Order: sequence, then C-alpha cells, then structure tokens
Amino acid sequence: MYLVGSDKKMDYVNGPGRNHLFVPGPVNIPDQVIRAMSRNNEDYRSPAIPALTKTLLEDVKKIFKTTSGTPFLFPTTGTGAWESALTNTLSPGDRIVSFLIGQFSLLWIDQQQRLNFNVDVVESEWGQGANLDALASKLAEDRAHTIKAICIVHNETATGVTNNLATVRKILNQYNHPALFLVDGVSSICALDFRMDEWGVDVALTGSQKALSLPTGIGIVCASPKALEASKSAKSVRVFFDWKDYLKFYKMGTYWPYTPSIQLLYGLRAALDLLFEEGLDNVIARHNRLATATRLAVDAWGLKNCTQKEEWHSDTVTAVVVPEYIDSSEIVRSAWKRYNLSLGLGLNKVAGKVFRIGHLGNLNELQLLGCLGGVEMVLKDVGYPVKLGSGVAAAATYLQNTTPLIPSRI
Amino acid sequence: MYLVGSDKKMDYVNGPGRNHLFVPGPVNIPDQVIRAMSRNNEDYRSPAIPALTKTLLEDVKKIFKTTSGTPFLFPTTGTGAWESALTNTLSPGDRIVSFLIGQFSLLWIDQQQRLNFNVDVVESEWGQGANLDALASKLAEDRAHTIKAICIVHNETATGVTNNLATVRKILNQYNHPALFLVDGVSSICALDFRMDEWGVDVALTGSQKALSLPTGIGIVCASPKALEASKSAKSVRVFFDWKDYLKFYKMGTYWPYTPSIQLLYGLRAALDLLFEEGLDNVIARHNRLATATRLAVDAWGLKNCTQKEEWHSDTVTAVVVPEYIDSSEIVRSAWKRYNLSLGLGLNKVAGKVFRIGHLGNLNELQLLGCLGGVEMVLKDVGYPVKLGSGVAAAATYLQNTTPLIPSRI
Amino acid sequence: MYLVGSDKKMDYVNGPGRNHLFVPGPVNIPDQVIRAMSRNNEDYRSPAIPALTKTLLEDVKKIFKTTSGTPFLFPTTGTGAWESALTNTLSPGDRIVSFLIGQFSLLWIDQQQRLNFNVDVVESEWGQGANLDALASKLAEDRAHTIKAICIVHNETATGVTNNLATVRKILNQYNHPALFLVDGVSSICALDFRMDEWGVDVALTGSQKALSLPTGIGIVCASPKALEASKSAKSVRVFFDWKDYLKFYKMGTYWPYTPSIQLLYGLRAALDLLFEEGLDNVIARHNRLATATRLAVDAWGLKNCTQKEEWHSDTVTAVVVPEYIDSSEIVRSAWKRYNLSLGLGLNKVAGKVFRIGHLGNLNELQLLGCLGGVEMVLKDVGYPVKLGSGVAAAATYLQNTTPLIPSRI
Amino acid sequence: MYLVGSDKKMDYVNGPGRNHLFVPGPVNIPDQVIRAMSRNNEDYRSPAIPALTKTLLEDVKKIFKTTSGTPFLFPTTGTGAWESALTNTLSPGDRIVSFLIGQFSLLWIDQQQRLNFNVDVVESEWGQGANLDALASKLAEDRAHTIKAICIVHNETATGVTNNLATVRKILNQYNHPALFLVDGVSSICALDFRMDEWGVDVALTGSQKALSLPTGIGIVCASPKALEASKSAKSVRVFFDWKDYLKFYKMGTYWPYTPSIQLLYGLRAALDLLFEEGLDNVIARHNRLATATRLAVDAWGLKNCTQKEEWHSDTVTAVVVPEYIDSSEIVRSAWKRYNLSLGLGLNKVAGKVFRIGHLGNLNELQLLGCLGGVEMVLKDVGYPVKLGSGVAAAATYLQNTTPLIPSRI
Repeated sequence: MYLVGSDKKMDYVNGPGRNHLFVPGPVNIPDQVIRAMSRNNEDYRSPAIPALTKTLLEDVKKIFKTTSGTPFLFPTTGTGAWESALTNTLSPGDRIVSFLIGQFSLLWIDQQQRLNFNVDVVESEWGQGANLDALASKLAEDRAHTIKAICIVHNETATGVTNNLATVRKILNQYNHPALFLVDGVSSICALDFRMDEWGVDVALTGSQKALSLPTGIGIVCASPKALEASKSAKSVRVFFDWKDYLKFYKMGTYWPYTPSIQLLYGLRAALDLLFEEGLDNVIARHNRLATATRLAVDAWGLKNCTQKEEWHSDTVTAVVVPEYIDSSEIVRSAWKRYNLSLGLGLNKVAGKVFRIGHLGNLNELQLLGCLGGVEMVLKDVGYPVKLGSGVAAAATYLQNTTPLIPSRI
Repeated sequence: MYLVGSDKKMDYVNGPGRNHLFVPGPVNIPDQVIRAMSRNNEDYRSPAIPALTKTLLEDVKKIFKTTSGTPFLFPTTGTGAWESALTNTLSPGDRIVSFLIGQFSLLWIDQQQRLNFNVDVVESEWGQGANLDALASKLAEDRAHTIKAICIVHNETATGVTNNLATVRKILNQYNHPALFLVDGVSSICALDFRMDEWGVDVALTGSQKALSLPTGIGIVCASPKALEASKSAKSVRVFFDWKDYLKFYKMGTYWPYTPSIQLLYGLRAALDLLFEEGLDNVIARHNRLATATRLAVDAWGLKNCTQKEEWHSDTVTAVVVPEYIDSSEIVRSAWKRYNLSLGLGLNKVAGKVFRIGHLGNLNELQLLGCLGGVEMVLKDVGYPVKLGSGVAAAATYLQNTTPLIPSRI
Repeated sequence: MYLVGSDKKMDYVNGPGRNHLFVPGPVNIPDQVIRAMSRNNEDYRSPAIPALTKTLLEDVKKIFKTTSGTPFLFPTTGTGAWESALTNTLSPGDRIVSFLIGQFSLLWIDQQQRLNFNVDVVESEWGQGANLDALASKLAEDRAHTIKAICIVHNETATGVTNNLATVRKILNQYNHPALFLVDGVSSICALDFRMDEWGVDVALTGSQKALSLPTGIGIVCASPKALEASKSAKSVRVFFDWKDYLKFYKMGTYWPYTPSIQLLYGLRAALDLLFEEGLDNVIARHNRLATATRLAVDAWGLKNCTQKEEWHSDTVTAVVVPEYIDSSEIVRSAWKRYNLSLGLGLNKVAGKVFRIGHLGNLNELQLLGCLGGVEMVLKDVGYPVKLGSGVAAAATYLQNTTPLIPSRI
Repeated sequence: MYLVGSDKKMDYVNGPGRNHLFVPGPVNIPDQVIRAMSRNNEDYRSPAIPALTKTLLEDVKKIFKTTSGTPFLFPTTGTGAWESALTNTLSPGDRIVSFLIGQFSLLWIDQQQRLNFNVDVVESEWGQGANLDALASKLAEDRAHTIKAICIVHNETATGVTNNLATVRKILNQYNHPALFLVDGVSSICALDFRMDEWGVDVALTGSQKALSLPTGIGIVCASPKALEASKSAKSVRVFFDWKDYLKFYKMGTYWPYTPSIQLLYGLRAALDLLFEEGLDNVIARHNRLATATRLAVDAWGLKNCTQKEEWHSDTVTAVVVPEYIDSSEIVRSAWKRYNLSLGLGLNKVAGKVFRIGHLGNLNELQLLGCLGGVEMVLKDVGYPVKLGSGVAAAATYLQNTTPLIPSRI
C-alpha cells in the first residue's frame, strides 16, 4: 500500500527492490532520461523550445536512417501514429494490402477498416512472418495500380516475428509498383536494423515508449517525399493528425501547431544523446546479443519459440510457447506477484499459450540474466520441470563470449 | 548554453534564478507533481495501473462537477480532445452553432469545418463574449431541430473572455432544444466555476497542462449520458479518439485500449490530491483573487483590459492592451530576455496589440506580485511611462485584505 | 563521456542499462526515496521541519529496537558517528577493549587511538569473529573496572563476519562489569537482527548509505540512558559531535543545533516508511534469504567464503576468496568495465585475495541472480574454470523454495 | 497534510504555489542541480567518482580565488567546517583573536573555547563590523607572536554585516605578524568578493547550502600552504575532520578516506557549472544588485537596517529592524502562514527586534520583488503603517536601470 500525494492508497505498488520490467513496452527508461524530464513546464513559444525542437527533428531522422524524410513528433501513442500515417496518405475507399500475423497487425488492420479503406488482408498463421509471395502475386495482378499502399508491421510484438522489409521493397521494385510502403516500426526502430531511405519506405512510425526508452507520449511519424506529395491529395478526414499543420509551423520556425510536452522533448533529447553516444549500430548489435541469449535460454528450458522460423526471429521480443497443461497467464501473474518481474501476456489467439519476454530498450546483459533466472523460477512455480540455472547458463555462455567492453570505460 | 545529455548544446535555457511562467499554459507544475512523475515505466497490464486508473476516473469527475458523466483520459492535447468531443457525437454534415470570439474558438471552428460539419459561426468582436442573443434567435427559428450541437469555449485564452455557460443552458431549455452542449473547458476547468451536471453540459473537455498543472499529454473528455447515447449513432470517422474502445476496456476492467503514460497517471493522481487537499472551491476562489489583483494592476498602469465588459473577465488569463506606439511582442521578448519572465503573446487579430498574463494553476500571491513587478519594469523598458510599483501596490492592497491563511499552517 | 551541466565531460559514467550495485555500501536507493529527496531546500526553522524531525526521531528508534534510547541524526558519515559515540562517552586515557577482525574494525581502532584512548586491542585472524573468550578473560581480571568500554563492530564489512552481540552482553553480565557497550552497526542495522535494549547496547550507530538505502550523509547514533549519563562527565573534546547541543535543541522543540539536510530528512522518512511497510522482521528475513543464496552460489563455484565459520556468516556482505593465481582486483575491474557490475574490492590484508558481494538494502531475488550470473561471467573472464549457471542454479533452487509472495500483491 | 511514503502525515507542508525561500540559508537549489542529484548511489571506489572528484577539487578552488590552496570537501555542515579549520591548524591553549559581532561569530567563538583555545574576544555592538583597530593594537603589542590565529567571520549572517578582509590582511602585514588568518566564508563565498590568495587567507570555509545553492552536506575547507604546514604540528585532537587522511587519499588518487555523498558530488558539479556559465564576477554583481534593491526597499518602508554603516552592508542578507511595538518573530510567522514566504528570524540579542531577508544563491530580480511585495503585506498585517508597493517601487526603479540581459538569451 503506497500513498502518492495525500490519502489515496495505491495497491500493488511497492515490493522490495526494483521492478524487473520485461514487457515489450513500455520499457525501462534510463535514469539519465528520467532526470532530463524531471522539470517544470516552459513557454513553448519562447525561443528555447523551437531551438530544441530543431535539433530533435534533425537527429530523429538518424534513427530512421533517412536524410530525405520529414519527421513529425505527434503528442500521441503508436495507435495515433498509425492513424496519422494512413489518413495523411490515403483516401477513403483506397485499396491497401495489409498483413495479418498477430495482435498488433490485427489492430492496425481494424483501424484501416474503420478508416474506410478497402483492406486486402493477407493472413499468416500466428508465429509466421508476412506472406510476401502473396504480395508478389497481388502486385503482379495489379497492372492497373489499384493498390495504393502496402501496410506492414516490421516487428509483430505479439508473436516476436520480424518481417523482411528489404524483400518487400524488392518485390515492389520488381513489379515497378507505385504503391506507398507504410511501415509500423513501433517495436523495431532504434533496436532492429531499419533503413528508411535504402528500403524506400514511405511512412515509418514508432512510439516513444519502445526502443527509444521514454515514457509513452510521442508518436514519431517519418514521411518520405513521395508520402508528403501523397498527403496533398489524400482525402481522409484529419485535423489533429494532419501533417499540413505541422509543415506550416515548420516553415514559420515555431514548429508546434499545438502544445507539446516540454518534458518529453527534453527526454527525447537525452534519449537520442544516449543512443548516439552508444552508437546506433552498437545498440542494434546489443539487441541482437540479448535476443540471441534469450532464445538460447528458451531452448535450454526445452520450450518452443512462438516464431516458427529463424529468419523471423525478433531481436526485441521473444514469445515463448508453454506446454498445454500450463496457462501462460499464470506465469505472468506469478512473476509479478512473487518476483517483481513483469512479463508480457499472450494476446488473443495465443492468450494462455505464450508469455513474452521483451528485451528492448536500455538494457544490459545482467538485467537479462536476472530476468531469465526469474523466468526459470516461475516456470518451476507453475509446475514445469525446468532445470534451474539451465537457461541462464546457456545465455551466459553466449554472452560471456560476445559482450564487448563498455566503450566509455575502456 | 546548456548541455542536456552529451554534446548537444541548448541555447537560451539557463538564467540565474527561476523562470517566472505566466503564459496561460502550459503552467507551473507543483514540485509534488514533478516528484510523483519522476519514475520508470511500468507494465500497464499489471493489476497496479488499472487500480490507479480506477481512482483517477472516479476522482476526475469531481473537477467537472459531474456524477453522471463518463470521463476519458486521452493521451493527447486539447486539440485532440476537441476532435474526440466532436467526432464521437456528430456526423458529417451536422449543423452546429459555434461562437467565434478569439484565436482558440477560431481554431476549434476551423477543426469543426475540416471535420465536415456544417458550422453556423456566430462571431463577436475579439474582447467580447459569445453572442448569446444570436443563439436564442437561432434556436427560436430552429423548430426542426436541425442544430445538432452548440459548441462554445468556456474561456477564450486569447482575449481573456469567459462565457456564461449557465445562460447557454437557460436558452437551450427555454426553447426546449435537444442540441448537444459541447464545451471547451481547456483554460477554465479546475480554475473557474464549472458545473457539468447542473448546466447540462454534454461534453466537456480540458488539457492536463492547464489548471490541472501537469505536463501536456492528457486530453480529458467527459461525456454525459446523452452524449454517450449520441456516440452510438455518430457517423464521424474515428479510431484513436473513439470512446467505444475505451468503454470496452472499462468494462473489462483493464481500462486502456492502448498504452497510457504511466508518469502522467501518477502525476494526475498527485495533482488531484493537491486540488482536493486545497479544496476545489478554494482553488477557484484563489484564481478569482489573483485575477482580481491582476486587473487592479492593469488599471493602475493606465492600460486597458482586452476584455470589454466585467461580466466576461477571465479569472485565468488577462489580455492587456498596449498603446498603439508599442509592439506587444516586444514586451514578451524583453520580459523573457531580461527578467526570465514568460508572458503570452497576442495572437492573430490582436497580435502586437495585447500581451497576456496567465494566472492559472498552482500559483500564489507572491508569485503574482513578482510577475506584476516584472511587467512594470518591462513596460518601462519598452517606453511606456508606467509608475514602477503602482500595479504591485494596487494588487497588494487587494491581496493583503483578502488572502486567507494557508489551511495546513493554521 | 557524459556532460552533467555544461562543458565538464564526465568519463566512465554511461553504459547501456542499469548499474548493478553490489558493493557493501553505498547501496541502491529505492526510487520512492530518490523521489522523496528530489526537492528544494526549506527553512529548517519553520514549524514543518521540527514536525518532520519529531516523527523521524521517534521512528528511527524502531530500527535499533530500543524504546529507552535517544537517537541523534548527525550530518556526517559512519566515521563521524564513530567519533560521536566515543567522544561523548569517554575521556582521554580511558581504557577500552576493542576487537580487530578486519579493515573497518581496524579503522575504528585507529580512530580510538588517535582520540587518545588506551585501547586494548583483541585481534583475530581476518575471517574470524571477535575473540570473546579474550573478552571474558579481560573482564574477569578487571576487578577494578579500569575497562570503561567495549567497542565492537557488529558486522565487519571487509570480511563478511558478524559478531555475536548477545554473547558480549552475556559476558558483561556474567562479570557484572559496568563497561559501556559500544557497537558499530554500520553494515548491520536494518538488515541483521539487532536489539539495542535487549542486548544492553549503550551506543549503537549506523550510516544512512547502508541498509537504510539512502545517500551518504546521516550518521545515526543511538544512546542508552547509561550512555547519556556518561556523556555528562566524559572529557573528550567535542563540539560538532556533541550530544549536549542536540539535547538542548530537543528540549526547545527545534531539534537542530545547525542546519540539517532537508532532502535527507524527507528521504529518511520515505526509507523508514518503506521499511515499516515491508516489516522490519521481513526485511531481516529477506537479507538472510539473499545471503544464503549467495553463499550457496559461492559453494557451487567451488570458491571459499572468507568467513571461516558458519556462525559468523554475514547476511549483508559475502567476501569470496579467489584462487592464488587470480588477482581479485581484476575481477572487480572487469565486472565494472564489461558488465556494469559494481563489486567490492578486497581491502588491506585481503587485498587481491577476496572480492565482495554486498547484498544489503533494498534488493530482491532477481537483482541478486543478475549479479551472480555476472560474477560467473567475470570469473570465467579472468580464467577461473567456473561452470556458467552453476551459482545461479544453486541460488535459484534455494530462492524458489523460500521466496514469499510480495505482501502488497497477494 | 501531506503523506510522504506511506501513512505518515506531514503537517504544514503544502500551500498553493511555491515556497518563497528568503532565509539566509539553506537557499534555493536550481532545478538543474536538483536534477543532477536525483540519482542512485554509486560505488565510490570505481574510476568514475575519483575522476569526478578531481574536477571538483580543481574547480572549487576558483570560488575561493586561489591557485595555491588545497580544498577539502567534508561531508559535514559549516559547524563541522569550522572545527576542521581550527583543529587542523591549532593546538590546545593557542591564543587566537576572534571577533564577536553577531550570533554566528558567537557560535564560532563558543566552539573555539570548547576546543580549548585561548580566545581573545574582540566584541562589537551587534550591527557593527569587527573592530579592526583593536586588532591592530593587539598585533602591535604582540611582539612575541603569542597570537597564533585571527578568526573572523566574513559575513555575519545574523546582522547582515560584512567585514573587510583586505584590511585584516593589511594590518597583519603592517605588523609583519605570522598569525594564521582563518575566515568563515559561509554566507559570503560565491556571493561576495572573496580573494583567498590576494588577501593571504590561510583557511577559508563555506557550506554547500549557502551561495553554492546546494543541499546541506558539504563543508568546504580550503587551506593555504602555510595552513597545511601548520597542520603538521597542530596538536588538537581530530580524526573525522583531519586533513591528513584526505591528503593521503589525494596522493593515492582515490580521494576519499570515507564514503562521500555521490549525489552531492554530482550536485556540486552542476552548481559549479552554473556558476561558471554565469561567470563568478557576474554572480557577485547580481548579489550586489539584489542587495542594493533590498536596502532601497527597506529605506522606502521607513525601516532601519540593522547594519550600522554602509561599509558593512552585506550583499547576502539584510537584517531589518522593526519598531519596538512589533515582535519581528510575528512577521516571520505570519509570512510563512499566510504568504508561503520564509524569512529569517532575529537571533539572540536581536531576537524579536529584526527579521532577515536572505538574498543569496540562485535568485533573480522578480523573485526578489515577489519577496519584497510579500514583506510589505506582512508588515501591514502586523500593524506597521507601510505604504504597499513603496519598497517594490524603490527596488524596481533600481533594478530596471541595472539589470543586464540574460547572457544566454541575447
């Protein structure tokens, strides 16, 4: 029981020691970022905030690996960023091809349908990647270019599946198809290899609470010149999410059509500084290292990865399939109640069947080992005959061979 | 020059001493609230966040003075809250009556038009309140009930004008008109007397960065049962801002269709606790006290209030008209550059003609006197022959007579 | 490289993820406490600070398990608290018996000698507890009561040895000896079973940065009525550390002879609240649980505990002996440079021979497993043929059997 | 009523808006510094803390204007710093000349006497500066050099009197007297002109909670080479405050004989960065500007400054004499209870007769005007016939003429 400000009692909050946060978002915020955000409001019309914003817009492009894109920092969540990407580039009735491979792609498709697009859903079994052969067929048939956009989730957070975006571009090029290429990079950007310009992505988006390791509250949308052009004729109704208003204020140099979160702007500055200090490629390598270690632990436990093929393995989240006699929700519940460990639930089709370990954002090797040690204990708690230490051993063997020295300490 | 995290240099930031933040939003955040928000992310699907959310939804109704309303805490700004209020209750083509009295009502009307409503704009001179006689005429004529909603800004932040909502309700009742009553309470709620149930308001909304004294990031929308009913048939396209998704998660007891800002939830808890500790009516009385003192200072300086009649005087912001030979933007610029005082610019029609003193949120008497002392010095800086100390004297004379003891210290 | 405020570059600071702080002090500060301390200064002569201080003085007695003691919150470190304990109760030339069993008892003895007491040093091999048989002999011989005080370190942080204070009291009683019983509880109080009243301890002391889990800056000294009486005639020169000044201000109800740290007072309040919420006995049980797990890991690694007998095993710190061919400093260095893990160095006689794992303060099971996983990797890095996962497995087996549910989450 | 962590209720804490902290210490902490300190503990034996400490020791010399001095950052208060200055340079029985001009010089003299020095007290009326003619006489007579040290408070915080240290040095030189020159700079250094090397000061000291604008907890002592030499033979008993232990660890490059406050080290770094960014001479000029404005306000109110001559006027604190029919404590009480304004009480001889306005540390013009406006209201509350606005007008007239643009915003 914990009292925040006066006499409101807040249940569940305190446990001894730290919370081990291994959900695939929102993720751990580095202390440096928490400090940078611990501040009063400011007048966003003073010269200071535009000066800060200017550096952010310039630097945020680096995490998309784009030089030609135009970024927007919407005060919203990933769901809002989705809506901004769609409504600024498409008109009601437009045909789009969209891949359903798990809960988040499902939700995006639901949004696409509710926004009145004509959605051509390409479904895969949960645990598989997007069916890109189907894409090729559709493009091949679409000589009239009725398909206006391809919508794809780079990394499906529900199943731990990463789609191959380079291949999507290759197929588009192969058929010389002009469809817009819209990418949900919510659980990938800043953690997985992502190359907006090289892959010809037209709109990419992410949320501040994922690999950027901030609180929820900024939906970052980045638009290619082609997407910006499309926005001029897109007929979807939009106001809050309209790029036009932002572009107008960019031109004036005041940047904000409405009030931004001062705290998140300073937080984003600090988060980007940390990313660039570590080096974006090192950050991506670290995510691969921690993910590989996690997959080795899952193997050692004798459990199955929900992701069906290695090519789709996600470096930001691992969905672990539990034996049929176990309810995976019980694992999540028990982890939190006994070990202060926060794991991700199985969602929708895989509810009760998988639990998820999020390993994205500002994390290191020993935090992961603590988590894996905890998962082992929980597995035992719920009746799975795991050999305690086995997963940690597998992970540590890999990590001890691959972890570099911390650059600032060499 | 100030370095946030690594080698990014941030101009303009540091001055000796505190920034005196007197823009009408975002406003000063109490230290207690900054502390409550200085924290890591959490799993929003654990039992803790729903338990916290439940208390917030219950308590936030008190600031609207409603028991029958249903509140929504959108991760957005006031502009987003506007959009949510409109799209959930209305269908494209619906006729609405909307009052244009300043920049913010103008922006809302712009949004209404872009969302394809048929907006019947009732314009007043800037500095005047909404023309409610025109409303009466329109309702009188509208026997067919073609008017679906009345949209009104309770407090126009650009001119410091407060509209009389009780009268709006009276007129609606007089004509027994079923139009929805939608209110922008962005710069009023928690600061001015606001009575959702008593005045029969159907949707009221505010933003966290105004009188609630939080960072930007929560758009609070509160819907009456009638508004909820309307939302079932409203045909405006909406997904992110759709109440339906929230209501579905309310029913499940998990509350959030997508990721909220953990920090803002704890911050809102702390902000509400402070409000209730002081007492909402005391908070409103304090706003009236500080506003009265400000107006007395303006009189003493020999300057005019932009608000043309006393009945419209706003207790959250005062727009001060400067003599023609002065550019009010120069006042704002100089205040910030020399005295670390943040004042509000004149906007649009009153750009260069007024500057604004925001006196809302967690403020006290001596903060205001510091601001007024600063404004006097700036006025002199820009060539207005003010008698230094005159405004402070007028304000202090009033405050010394009216300021109560701090309850916790009696 | 990290820049704190302007252009000072700070080396070594940033690594990806959290620092794993396992030195035996200063220890991890709970976020709740960091938040409580993140505040401006206040006038310590206002009514608020005495009111707060009063609750602290009352509640701090509980961590000493005393009702008759008088606590003092000196703005100092453990070294200062030592000095306060000695100079307030003894006069130059007084004979005292003091036990040398490691670096911290050595430093205290050094202080005792420099303060001109006649120190009768009873030395043990490092790794052993205090030689209480020698104490018995000395008391037996001391019919003239020339021994004025017994000085003993409850828990020697350098070797991980806990002395048996109940036995000290038994021996004192057995010889009916009036010597004062002075105890350094720096790395024990709030973590190990400590009973000031029951054991007849005359002065006990601790530091805020140890099991209380605060920053350094409060040396807490608690005096029995007998110690207070002794302070009236003690001739050691003292001013800053004089209890008399405090007692004078206690009487006046203003409490502070000089300026306290406002932040640490609020921090102490929060730390005590967390301790009492968890329950002091549960906190002590948690320390025992984590310590037992650590010792099991050390066994599994095939390494020796520096503590020579089980009866002396410390529940707050484990000193691990490394094979002769390894320099333990290299372990500490490597842990920090590669894994962001902070371990304790071997000090003085055991420099290079042991490294230390501090497991005190606000810690939980998974944090410990992360640390143990890290130690294993470091051991392998430096050439010790450890089986990765072995220590974690041993610890987890114990912990999985013994960890209770988190009370607030049941 | 405010609850910090669990169910402890804290009275008096909350009022609407900010506390206006105008006691002469502890003073307002800049938000940048609060942020820098909002952090977990660290291992102070890692390479990071010595690297940080090294920059601090180098930079802290600048605030003393010394290149030859050796600074010590004791984890203590000003009272502890006094003790360190005395015990490291003097032996019991040593004759010292000490000036009694107010409560803080009185307390230092009390300490000197309790430390068994032979104190030759030169008393002045409270409100006057040190009687330096008496010093000249004493030195003239002391051909045998029995006087070992001159102890003087640079700025007496109780009466707002600044002594002329350059004259002290001139007199010492005139008589070619080898006495050590020990200076309490607690409420002067970083705010008043202070020149350790130029004035030949042998030990100067300050506290972190004064013009450095940090929390209480660092007593900064700076020793000249002559003082260091003296410390080798000084026979006063000391351990915690002994410079020798620090010097030993300086040589080893680990810097700390015992655990420092990690938070205060980072805070000191940020505080120094802010000072140097503003420019030490600009900081001193700002203190003079705010002090002059305060004195003009006091004149305008028709009240007397406790400081009897202009040459002694303090630029960090103004003690205001109230008419006989008013109890100055009532002013302090009322300011806090009604206006959330913290003023300094009159102490000892001037209790009830003066109240004090501290204007040191990180403050600006508008903060001061708020305070002065508040003092006026309080004066009226307690029955003094002040013309409201009169003091603010006088101060503002001066400030409007003299305040420079904020350099970072030009």
